Amino acid sequence: MANFNEHDLTDEVLRSFAKTPNARLKFLIEETVKSLHDLVRRTELTFEEWNQAIEFLTRTGQTCTPLRQEFILLSDVLGVSMLVDAINHREREGATETTVLGPFYVGEHRVTPHGANISEGIDGEVMFVQSRVTDLAGKPLVGAEIDVWHADDDGFYDSQKADYAAHGPSLRARFVTGADGRFSFRTILPCSYPIPTDGPVGDLITTTKRHPMRPAHVHFLVKAEGYEPLITHVFLDGDEYLRSDVVFGVKDELIARVEPRSEPALPNGERVSGPWHLMTYDFQMRPGAGLVPQPMMAAE
Amino acid sequence: MANFNEHDLTDEVLRSFAKTPNARLKFLIEETVKSLHDLVRRTELTFEEWNQAIEFLTRTGQTCTPLRQEFILLSDVLGVSMLVDAINHREREGATETTVLGPFYVGEHRVTPHGANISEGIDGEVMFVQSRVTDLAGKPLVGAEIDVWHADDDGFYDSQKADYAAHGPSLRARFVTGADGRFSFRTILPCSYPIPTDGPVGDLITTTKRHPMRPAHVHFLVKAEGYEPLITHVFLDGDEYLRSDVVFGVKDELIARVEPRSEPALPNGERVSGPWHLMTYDFQMRPGAGLVPQPMMAAE
Repeated sequence: MANFNEHDLTDEVLRSFAKTPNARLKFLIEETVKSLHDLVRRTELTFEEWNQAIEFLTRTGQTCTPLRQEFILLSDVLGVSMLVDAINHREREGATETTVLGPFYVGEHRVTPHGANISEGIDGEVMFVQSRVTDLAGKPLVGAEIDVWHADDDGFYDSQKADYAAHGPSLRARFVTGADGRFSFRTILPCSYPIPTDGPVGDLITTTKRHPMRPAHVHFLVKAEGYEPLITHVFLDGDEYLRSDVVFGVKDELIARVEPRSEPALPNGERVSGPWHLMTYDFQMRPGAGLVPQPMMAAE
Repeated sequence: MANFNEHDLTDEVLRSFAKTPNARLKFLIEETVKSLHDLVRRTELTFEEWNQAIEFLTRTGQTCTPLRQEFILLSDVLGVSMLVDAINHREREGATETTVLGPFYVGEHRVTPHGANISEGIDGEVMFVQSRVTDLAGKPLVGAEIDVWHADDDGFYDSQKADYAAHGPSLRARFVTGADGRFSFRTILPCSYPIPTDGPVGDLITTTKRHPMRPAHVHFLVKAEGYEPLITHVFLDGDEYLRSDVVFGVKDELIARVEPRSEPALPNGERVSGPWHLMTYDFQMRPGAGLVPQPMMAAE
């Protein structure tokens, strides 16, 4: 039949997907169609608004580059990423809490010696991070891989800088645990920062009078054979945006007190002049498996 | 507060948009957030599926070019475009029915004399189109602008061809009505054709075992001062895909019987050898105003 009205059109669209071989895909498409159609009917969306939505989605796709994922950012600021996280991590059983991946997991994460300085050439207050990866019973996990990345003192990730291709990664590394499950590194104290506001997601945030800030944090992606990959951040206690993170990513368990220190040497033996900061945070891994996100690409 | 669970997270996201100055935008965002969150909860979307959705949307945006609008195509095959059409054209009061704009309204539409051949250099069976633009009472509308576009005998629009920039538009033109409200042109008989299947929307159609076909049609966009812009197609009766259009765009009132003719001259006086086809279809315009879609860009 032709001449679908606003009520029977949805049924006809659902029927068109009836032969989808994969049952899960069929279900996901059916529910998406129902949601979208219901949204259009409920809002009485105008042709002009539909047109603006098409343009917004197109610009979002075209703002993506090998080093920038604007659709993840959109998912983040709409709380969708954290909802997917919540639904897929209902039972933590003592495992470390998870949070969003974020749009800056872009590679490349070079395996780096314990205690190394990953902030070479970057200005900022010295921070030393010490951590241990264990199972739920506290047994150290050997050979766990930990990808670490965080923003600099001005709130920018290495991959956001024009000279990334030439200079390669900084404030970004991979560590592998030894027999004691431990790893550590020297870096700088991250600060709170705005998500990129020069794209369509930034326009959305500005137009709706939201603030674009994320509280200071370090990203960790921990992988260990036989355990669920752990995607998380460790947030710095005291940050003014801990209660209004633009991507809704904060969980109380992920806030670490960063201690002010004044010893003349870091735990790795390196001598420092002046005060520094010590972050201590351990990760408890849950048995299982799961998708390991792939970096969008390695730097050229 | 932090530590949102899957139930209170939605409320927190809605609260974050509370200061949106434009009330309609606020409503649209709130309803979109509720729909999206409800969809994620209802489907228990996995992290891997979320990742695939991000990739699909990104590819869709990146498949768009100044001459190709993959997000409109996605909206079309999900029936969203026709739903927006249905909701915004509930009362036709005798006006011509509307249908989707489609992804090939790309410009440029050169004003062309009545009776002209818009298929110069294109193979196919000759078709002559004659039409009249009137108000609801049948009074001819003077100075109405009619943009016309359709696919060739192989199912391709001019803008899909590699040599579009060099050769410029074909099977695409603009006519302006005179005092009698009439316009006419010579072209070729369009055929049914598949939507582009080399992008993410094509992948969706293939994976779900839908057919990608649209029944043969000619696009018309009619604009007249003081009247609602009319976005529509005229479909050719007898096409095998009239009841299963991949974009759900067919309405019975838009199907025209194309008459087989054998006179040695077309209505414009041009002599032809062999049979030809005559399409006669008139447009009734409804008083009002509305958004006129802009071509994505003129050809270089």
